[in-house]
Amino acid sequence: MPIDARLPKEIRADIRAGRLNAVTAGLAPGYVQANLAVLPKEQAYDFLLFCQRNPRPCPLIEVTEAGSPEPVGVAPGADLRTDLPRYRIYKDGVLADEVTDVRPFWRDDLVAFLLGCSFTFEWALLDAGIPMRHIELGKNVAMWKTSVQCRPAGQFHGPMVVSMRPIPTALLSKAVTASARFPGAHGAPVHVGDPAALGIADVNKPDWGDSVGVRAGEVPVFWACGVTPQAVALASKPAFMITHSPGHMFITDLPNHALAAI
Amino acid sequence: MPIDARLPKEIRADIRAGRLNAVTAGLAPGYVQANLAVLPKEQAYDFLLFCQRNPRPCPLIEVTEAGSPEPVGVAPGADLRTDLPRYRIYKDGVLADEVTDVRPFWRDDLVAFLLGCSFTFEWALLDAGIPMRHIELGKNVAMWKTSVQCRPAGQFHGPMVVSMRPIPTALLSKAVTASARFPGAHGAPVHVGDPAALGIADVNKPDWGDSVGVRAGEVPVFWACGVTPQAVALASKPAFMITHSPGHMFITDLPNHALAAI
Repeated sequence: MPIDARLPKEIRADIRAGRLNAVTAGLAPGYVQANLAVLPKEQAYDFLLFCQRNPRPCPLIEVTEAGSPEPVGVAPGADLRTDLPRYRIYKDGVLADEVTDVRPFWRDDLVAFLLGCSFTFEWALLDAGIPMRHIELGKNVAMWKTSVQCRPAGQFHGPMVVSMRPIPTALLSKAVTASARFPGAHGAPVHVGDPAALGIADVNKPDWGDSVGVRAGEVPVFWACGVTPQAVALASKPAFMITHSPGHMFITDLPNHALAAI
Repeated sequence: MPIDARLPKEIRADIRAGRLNAVTAGLAPGYVQANLAVLPKEQAYDFLLFCQRNPRPCPLIEVTEAGSPEPVGVAPGADLRTDLPRYRIYKDGVLADEVTDVRPFWRDDLVAFLLGCSFTFEWALLDAGIPMRHIELGKNVAMWKTSVQCRPAGQFHGPMVVSMRPIPTALLSKAVTASARFPGAHGAPVHVGDPAALGIADVNKPDWGDSVGVRAGEVPVFWACGVTPQAVALASKPAFMITHSPGHMFITDLPNHALAAI
């Protein structure tokens, strides 16, 4: 994976100017990257409440003022309309467009939600000496829709989505404690072991991403996944919604350790 | 302090029936008690966002559906209109009434917010072997308005309120880690040491509660305080608001360990 170790604001400037438009893995390592969901103010209370009620899949790190594209808490001066490499525009819950600049779509009633992403806890796991099979293989992490329902809020409801990483049993404790320190990036695993407990029929057949298998001496460990809030929001078919394109995240000014709870 | 070790729902039934109407310290030890703030739906988005932006002073543990007095997430079957020993009714930000039953004041547009309280982290500190001077002396904890401004949201803004506990230097690390495990109950200290850093002129003259002093070999340790959200909400003079009366908390069904992040 190529690494671009410049500061977040330098990389965002390149993205804004159109000089960078690929996935953000490997960019500004050590800094928090975030999922983006933008909804009209009319839906914002229910979505905010949904996130509050489901903090594992939906760890909120920033909510903008209605109409403002500036995430003042996590990246003052940034512009959420231009500073992500790629966006998706949804109308009535259907993908309508994929663009690199959402200024033409912006409205005075839009609220942007930024949610912590797995990059932060994967950094914590790697830093604790825990190998990540999908990274070693250059694959996407495996993800499943589970039989666990999120706690609904207003129009938003749906199942929790999880990602799975095979962890050697000797490193299991460390994987739990290392990720638990980062509730702002999905936190501790939501389940360890038997996939059937989450309604997952075959741990080798993910609903999204790539299968990497579970070897002898390894346990499948499941974390809540940031795909959940987008899937849940889209399932309610909002008239208008903007998200980042998969893998094309917003890079904040927060160092990863800023999300550490302890 | 007299202890009533029955289950929360048994104690709530006594409160509901008018057989108990005193402060809730010592009731159902081991279970999470909560601060109550009730606002019309019209103000609920801004208040929810304020809590999301200021999690240390405003650790949300439950938000009810508009019009419903049942906190289904933390005490299914309970009724927030009758199950607290004493309430305060505010009109235009001014205390208008103090009552033991708010059913006559209830409206279809009211949203109830429950916020974690210091009882949970004090339990964690005591359990870690850390003495609590104010409890030993049978006094209220000392509290100050600080020079630290909360991050505003809509109509809600104001300074953070903190409580202070003197901690022997040898136990300082343990006090930090023991409380940090409970972000749902104010979490780790917001400041350790020099009171002037928070704009506190005299650590022996609290704005509320009782002074217990800081002895040689002790450090003043400051935690964000649940007085903050009520003070902030009232400062914006909402047309209508209900809160618990000081010390007369809502007793949830959650064991304290349910709020542990790690």
